[in-house]
Amino acid sequence: MRIEAIAIGTELLTTRRTDTNSVWLGERLAGLGLAFHRKTCVGDDPDDLKSVFAEALTRSELIICTGGLGPTFDDVTKELWAEHLGAELTEHPQVKADIVEFFARRGRTPPSTNFKQALVPVGAEALRNAVGSAPGIWWEPASHPGRTVVMLPGVPREMKHLWESAVEPRLKARGDQAVHTLRLVVGGVPESFLDERTASLRQRHGGLEWTILSALTQVELLARGRDPEALEAARRDFAAFLGTDLVCTGPENLEDTVLALLQARRQSLAVAESMPGGLICSRLAAIPGCSRVLRGGAVAYSAAAKRLLCEVDAGLLEAEGTVSEAVTLALARGLRSRLATDWALGVTGNAGPEADPEGKGAPVGTFFVAVCGPAGECAARYAFPTDRAGVQLRSVGWALDFLRRRILGT
Amino acid sequence: MRIEAIAIGTELLTTRRTDTNSVWLGERLAGLGLAFHRKTCVGDDPDDLKSVFAEALTRSELIICTGGLGPTFDDVTKELWAEHLGAELTEHPQVKADIVEFFARRGRTPPSTNFKQALVPVGAEALRNAVGSAPGIWWEPASHPGRTVVMLPGVPREMKHLWESAVEPRLKARGDQAVHTLRLVVGGVPESFLDERTASLRQRHGGLEWTILSALTQVELLARGRDPEALEAARRDFAAFLGTDLVCTGPENLEDTVLALLQARRQSLAVAESMPGGLICSRLAAIPGCSRVLRGGAVAYSAAAKRLLCEVDAGLLEAEGTVSEAVTLALARGLRSRLATDWALGVTGNAGPEADPEGKGAPVGTFFVAVCGPAGECAARYAFPTDRAGVQLRSVGWALDFLRRRILGT
Repeated sequence: MRIEAIAIGTELLTTRRTDTNSVWLGERLAGLGLAFHRKTCVGDDPDDLKSVFAEALTRSELIICTGGLGPTFDDVTKELWAEHLGAELTEHPQVKADIVEFFARRGRTPPSTNFKQALVPVGAEALRNAVGSAPGIWWEPASHPGRTVVMLPGVPREMKHLWESAVEPRLKARGDQAVHTLRLVVGGVPESFLDERTASLRQRHGGLEWTILSALTQVELLARGRDPEALEAARRDFAAFLGTDLVCTGPENLEDTVLALLQARRQSLAVAESMPGGLICSRLAAIPGCSRVLRGGAVAYSAAAKRLLCEVDAGLLEAEGTVSEAVTLALARGLRSRLATDWALGVTGNAGPEADPEGKGAPVGTFFVAVCGPAGECAARYAFPTDRAGVQLRSVGWALDFLRRRILGT
Repeated sequence: MRIEAIAIGTELLTTRRTDTNSVWLGERLAGLGLAFHRKTCVGDDPDDLKSVFAEALTRSELIICTGGLGPTFDDVTKELWAEHLGAELTEHPQVKADIVEFFARRGRTPPSTNFKQALVPVGAEALRNAVGSAPGIWWEPASHPGRTVVMLPGVPREMKHLWESAVEPRLKARGDQAVHTLRLVVGGVPESFLDERTASLRQRHGGLEWTILSALTQVELLARGRDPEALEAARRDFAAFLGTDLVCTGPENLEDTVLALLQARRQSLAVAESMPGGLICSRLAAIPGCSRVLRGGAVAYSAAAKRLLCEVDAGLLEAEGTVSEAVTLALARGLRSRLATDWALGVTGNAGPEADPEGKGAPVGTFFVAVCGPAGECAARYAFPTDRAGVQLRSVGWALDFLRRRILGT
C-alpha cells in the first residue's frame, strides 16, 4: 500500500515548527508493517493545497492529512477535499452536539465559527474527537475506488488520539497488520556504546529488523518482525544481556519505570533541582497517579533558594560553589528531611550558555546528580557539553536512571 | 519567487529522523525575505525522485534539494536531475582534486566510489565543499528559463557551509523580491475568539496573507506580505486593537516576555505550582539568563509540600481543599515571603484523569492562578476539561499571561 503524509499549515514553512506528526505517524505505521513513500509540508494557500491533493490521489492509496481542520478562516482541508472530490459538506448533528458539549464543559457557548468544524463531506465518515473540537475524517470516495483519505487535526494530542481510537483500528481491520514490534528502553548507556555492545546479539537475532533510537533522556532498541516467538526470544536474550541497563520493555519510559518501582515499594520521592529548572518534576508529574509517589520538588535555582527551600548551608555554597557534588547532596538531603520522603533526587549543573556565576566555573554541560534514600546517599558527575536544552534534557535522563539504579540497589 | 525544498533520504520516511535542513533553510530564506511554499520528503527510490523533480520544475522557480550527493549506490540526486534535464555528467577536475585533497588531509586515498562525487552535469555549476567530499550544484538549466535547481549535501554541517558560502551570495546578488512577515503573539484569548474579534481588522489589511496559529500556551497571528510599510501599518493597528492582549511581536514568546518585563523592572520571581508539576518553572528556566529574574520554585504537589515548602496553613488546606483560590493565594504568598521575591505566581489544579482526593472535588480541568506582587495579590479560576497534558500546558499559558497582566498593572 502506497501511503503519503500531507502536513498542512503555513507555520510549517515559515516558522521553526517542524512536522513532528508525520514522524510519529511513521512509527505507528511501521508497527503495522507499513511506511510512507512521501511526506509533504504545504501552507494554507488553497491553490497549493488543491495541487497537492490532486497529485496525492494519483499516486497513493492512503493519504493522511494533518492540520487545517480548525475553526478559523484559514482551515480549509475538508472544504478543499470536498471540492476536489465533488462532494457537498453537510452539518453532522452528532459532531455539532460534541462541539456544543466541548464548550459547555468550559462554561462557554461556541462562537459560530466553530460550527464549521461540524461539517462533514457527504460519503465521508466523521471521527469523533474526545480531546478537542475538530473531528477527523475517514473517506473512501466512491469516485476513486481503492483510495482512502484520512484527515486529522494538526494538534499532536488530538491527532494521536484520533489515530489510536479511530484510524489504526480501521487499518488493522483491513488486515494490513502484519508486523510485531519489541521495544527495549535502555538507561545509562550512550547510543553508540549500546550499538557496539549489542551488535553480535542483534546479529544472532538477525531475522528481526533492528533500529536504535536515541532520545536525549533514554535510548530505545526497536525490533520488528512477523514472528511473535522470535521477538519473545529476543526479549529474553536482551533482558539477560542488558541486566539492569534495561529500564523497561513495552510502551513505558524511564519516568514511568521509576514511579512504578517506588510505588511497588510504597516509597515516596522528592526532587531538588536547580539547572533542570523543574523539568524532572514535570516529567514525573505528567504521569497519571504520580501523586502516590511524588510528594513535591524544589526548583532551587538561586543560591538563596537552595538555602531557603532545601536548607543548604550558606558556608557550603560559599566553599563548594552551587554546581558541586557537596551542594547537590545537600540539596537532596535537605529536601528529603523537609518533606520526610523515603527518597530525594538532587541535580545541579551548568546548562549554559553563560557559566553560573556562583558555579565556581563548572564548565557548561557539567551536572551533578545526588540520591538520598533509605540505604544512604551517593552522587555522580556528568559532562555533556551541548546546547542549553540538550544539557537540561540529558540531566533528566541520567538523573532518573541514577535514581532507578539506587532503588534497585545496584 | 516560488521556492520549494526537497529532502532526499529513505531515513526521513522510516525513522525518527526529521528534516531539520529545510527548517534551517527556511529561516535563512526568511532573512532574505523569502519563504518556501512547499517542502517534500522523499526516499531514495528513483521513480519517486523523478516524479518529485518533474512536479517541482513545473511549479517552483527555485528548487533546493538536500541529500543524495554521497558516494554510495543509493545517492542519485545529480544523476536523476541530469537525466530529467537531458544533460551529460562530466568529471570536474577541480572537484576531483578537492576530493583527493580532502582524503589526503586524513592520510587516506579516496575509494574509487568517491570520484562519483566529482561528476557535474554539463551546464551546471559545482559548489566546492570545504568541509566534506560532496560538492553542491547550482543549475540554471537552459531548457527551463527562469528555473534554478540547487543541490546540497544532506549532512547539516556541509549543507550549511555550502548555503552560506555559495547559495546565499548568489540569491542576494539576484536581489529577489522580498516577502516580509509579522508575528503577533496573543495571550488570554482562545484561538476561535481571536479569529472572530480580528476578522474585520484582518480584512482591512487584506493585502497581507494571514494565519492564526494556536499553541496551548499562546495564540499567534502571522501575516506575510511584500510591502514592509503594509506590515508596519498592520502591526500598529493590531497593537492598538489588541491592547494588553498583545503579548509581543517578533520571535519572542510569552515566557520571554514575562522575564523581559520583570528584568526591565529589576524585579524577581518565584513560582509555586502544584498541578503543572514544575512545567511553569521549566519553561522559564529554558530561557538563557532567566536566573536574573527567576529565583526558584516550589513544586508543592502534596498537601504536605504545600505546608512545608510554602507555609500554607494546615487548617486552610483542610477547610478549602488543595485546589482552591485561597490555597493558591497562600502558596504564592508563602513562597514569595520565603524567597523574598518581588513577585510570586501560584497555580493549583486538577489535571486528571482522577480528581485530587484532597481537591475537594474540583472537577478535572479546573485550575486556579494567583499572583502576589508589589501592588497586592489576586487570583483567577479557569476550566479547560481535556487530557492531562492539555490541562497542564494550558495552565502554563494562562498563568504566565495572568502574571504578565498583573506586571503591566492591568
